[in-house]
Order: sequence, then C-alpha cells, then structure tokens
Amino acid sequence: MIQQQIKDAIRDIPDFPKPGIVFKDITPILKDPSLCDSIVDAFVAGLKDTRVDAIAGVESRGFLFGLTLATRLGVPFIPVRKAGKLPHTVMQKVYELEYGTATIELHTDAFKPGDHILIHDDLLATGGTVTAASELIQDMGGKVAGFTFVVGLGFLNGLEKIRPISNNVMVLASY
Amino acid sequence: MIQQQIKDAIRDIPDFPKPGIVFKDITPILKDPSLCDSIVDAFVAGLKDTRVDAIAGVESRGFLFGLTLATRLGVPFIPVRKAGKLPHTVMQKVYELEYGTATIELHTDAFKPGDHILIHDDLLATGGTVTAASELIQDMGGKVAGFTFVVGLGFLNGLEKIRPISNNVMVLASY
Repeated sequence: MIQQQIKDAIRDIPDFPKPGIVFKDITPILKDPSLCDSIVDAFVAGLKDTRVDAIAGVESRGFLFGLTLATRLGVPFIPVRKAGKLPHTVMQKVYELEYGTATIELHTDAFKPGDHILIHDDLLATGGTVTAASELIQDMGGKVAGFTFVVGLGFLNGLEKIRPISNNVMVLASY
Repeated sequence: MIQQQIKDAIRDIPDFPKPGIVFKDITPILKDPSLCDSIVDAFVAGLKDTRVDAIAGVESRGFLFGLTLATRLGVPFIPVRKAGKLPHTVMQKVYELEYGTATIELHTDAFKPGDHILIHDDLLATGGTVTAASELIQDMGGKVAGFTFVVGLGFLNGLEKIRPISNNVMVLASY
C-alpha cells in the first residue's frame, strides 16, 4: 500500500546527474503531506520492537524525515554532516566514492557510548554513506540499531553492504 | 518561554567558521524532542491567521523543521536547494555573498502561480539566502506568505532586509 503510493509519487529523471543514470526524484512525495504522514507512521510501526536512543540523519535529504521521525519517537536527532559544517568537536570518516573520496562528521557529544542509533536517509543506493556513518557511530562507542529508507535501489546492492552491520533494515519502496 | 528554552539549548562556538565569528550551534535543540515539538507548535500557533499553501525550506538546515511544519500544517514542502541538486526543470537565482556568489534553485513545478509560500530556515543572519529565495518565488509567480526562523541574529540586520518582502516574520529566539 505505502510502497505503491511512494512509487506512484516518485518521478524518474533520465540522465541525471549524468548520462545513463535514471534518478528517482522524491520531491513529489514532499508535496503530499498525507503521504509524508504515512511514511513516518510506517517507520514508527516498523520500529516498535527496536530500541532507538537517537536517530542519525544523513545530510541533506536525511534531515527531512529524520527530524520528524525523531520527534515522533521522542528521541534526539543527530545530524550526520559533510566535512566542515558541524561547529563543535567532531569525529570524521573518509569513504570512497566512484571517483575520489567524501568525508562525513559527527559531533563527539552526539550520543553516549552504548546508545542504540538508528540511521536514516531518504534513499539507499550503494550504501556507501550510511556504511561510513555506521562505522563512525561504532568508532564512537555506539551501536547501530538499524536503518530506515523511504526508497531503495536494489540493483546497486546497498542492502548486501549494510545487512552485515544490522539486519534491521526498513525500505518502504524497493526498485 | 520558548525563547528562553531555545537560548538555554543553543551553544556558542567562538571563532567558527572563522576567527571573530561566534557561531550559534543549534544541534543541542535537535537532541531535545520535547523542545522540537514546542518549536513546531509555536510556528503553527503563529501561523493560524496566515494563508500558507506550501512551505519552502532552505537546504540543509531548513529541511529539519521545514518538513515537520509542512506535515503538521497539511501543506506541501518545497526544497530550496543549492545549484545542481534538484533533478527536474529548475529556475535559479544567483546572489551575493561576502566573497563571491551562491546559487539556489527551485523546481519550476514546485507550486502554482498565486500560491502563498512560507519560507523557513533555522537561522536568520544577513537574510541573503531567504531574500534570494523570495525573489525566486516571486519570479515564478508565487507570493511570499512570510518567514519562520528558530533563531535570529539581530545585529546582522536580516530583519531590515526581509521585512519589505513580507512583514509576517516569526523569529522564536532573537539575539
């Protein structure tokens, strides 16, 4: 039901950001407040047996549903940001991209050692960024409680990459 | 009341992002779900007499409360993004920074001509980005319904810049 609503809303954009890639545009979802509500409801329902001490949302699009979900669950929201954006003391993780590297950061006081942190992003592609976020959380003494995504692109094998970190993965609409 | 709660949560970071600047770190607010709820409640209460057809949130930190507020009001959320991020047809606006320029974009189908668009960001500083967003919305036939910010830095004169666009400005905590 929600899977179909999400798929009906998503818009395919051919050749973005480069030739040969078909980009899944989620902005029509954001224009439907009732669907946004249903997405957060689905995450909340799916997490009812999961200990979640905080939600880590990946900049930028993981900020969208990440904060709404954290507020609904009554837990802290932790921004996972690109290098140089978080102003206090940070730990960082450098990870490989197709060409070159990227860096993400967390504030060192984002959570307490032993806390169970759920990682959220809007879309699971190769899983590179959320894997880096997981490693950073583990380096800082946290446990990865699981992952939530609105959309997953199965052909990019992100699930195979993140399931060894936590088998608790929720993808509302899979391609 | 909410102003004091926000000020109690915010952390001053001296010399970030460069020497002489005292940065207002809002991440402790995000760690307090009850305060996040109160912030959204305050925006909703303040907007009860305002026609809002959609909320435009400015990347990245305007995505945080922007989507939650849009969902609460039952209106579409429109992401205002940095150049090259939105995949469909866009209109863009180039604006001046202290050194150089920046570019923001909106999807051309983000809203209908005549819609009243509320602009949200977490923090009002010089007002450069939200002024550019306002001009872009007006260029596309929209009306600016007003502005909401969690925090405002009065000494940077952002209010003087945006009040001629709309006098409907809500700043929950002012410095």
